[in-house]
Amino acid sequence: MKWEDLSDQPCSISRALAVIGDRWTLMILRDCFLGVRRFEVFQRRLGVSRTIVTDRLRVLVDEGVLRRVAYQDKPVRHEYRLTEKGLDLHPVVMAIAHFGDSHYADAAGPPVLRRHKGCGCDFHPVQVCSECGETVTARQVEARAAPGFPEP
Amino acid sequence: MKWEDLSDQPCSISRALAVIGDRWTLMILRDCFLGVRRFEVFQRRLGVSRTIVTDRLRVLVDEGVLRRVAYQDKPVRHEYRLTEKGLDLHPVVMAIAHFGDSHYADAAGPPVLRRHKGCGCDFHPVQVCSECGETVTARQVEARAAPGFPEP
Repeated sequence: MKWEDLSDQPCSISRALAVIGDRWTLMILRDCFLGVRRFEVFQRRLGVSRTIVTDRLRVLVDEGVLRRVAYQDKPVRHEYRLTEKGLDLHPVVMAIAHFGDSHYADAAGPPVLRRHKGCGCDFHPVQVCSECGETVTARQVEARAAPGFPEP
Repeated sequence: MKWEDLSDQPCSISRALAVIGDRWTLMILRDCFLGVRRFEVFQRRLGVSRTIVTDRLRVLVDEGVLRRVAYQDKPVRHEYRLTEKGLDLHPVVMAIAHFGDSHYADAAGPPVLRRHKGCGCDFHPVQVCSECGETVTARQVEARAAPGFPEP
């Protein structure tokens, strides 16, 4: 399988990774969720080539994860904002951050703290079942092909 | 910044992506959570070179996400099993799957359904605050540097 074929697989993980699974793309999305919007800032923070940033932003715009918006007229300058679809990636970024906090924090603790404005507390994300509200762990999940799953 | 430098950043997302953020690695983890354990099966399912599979599995073993276990004596054969640390990646994989289900499902619906054994229902994951239990969205999260965050 080529990387480009991922989006054709009958698997939502493959299809999502076809969009966000490339090196640097999730780093760009991390920055989007920290409020970064401008090309130069993405590039400076990541310290990678213009080509890499251009290419990743283009894919994210093409896929509707980001939208490109003019913020200045003369000369025209654009910035990149998360769309509603892009905001749906928040649980992905938070889950990655929490894994990093749990396993790669320094002795002093995680480098970044996150506060939930709703309750005012520093928090970490917990994944629960949409139906019963209980915490979900890997051992409690059973995956099966849906009725429409293509025949091999 | 080089990809190899990600693990030195004062950011849990960078450090996590240094381990899981490479092309194919999250696809291998997807298969781990579906119960795949053997090299040949990973390779056949992904249809990529032995080198890619070998390299990704090695990193995941080195990082303690998978452990390599002999399942046969003569000749010795190994399989790859998720460790407790590896199981901590479940929310990441589930969040990616849910994003894919939400935005890349066919007209017939998501190709794979997931049942929560706890309540018996097909479900999707919801991310809630560890402190108050309410659903967390991007707009409700405020990130700040922790006291131990390195000076620039």
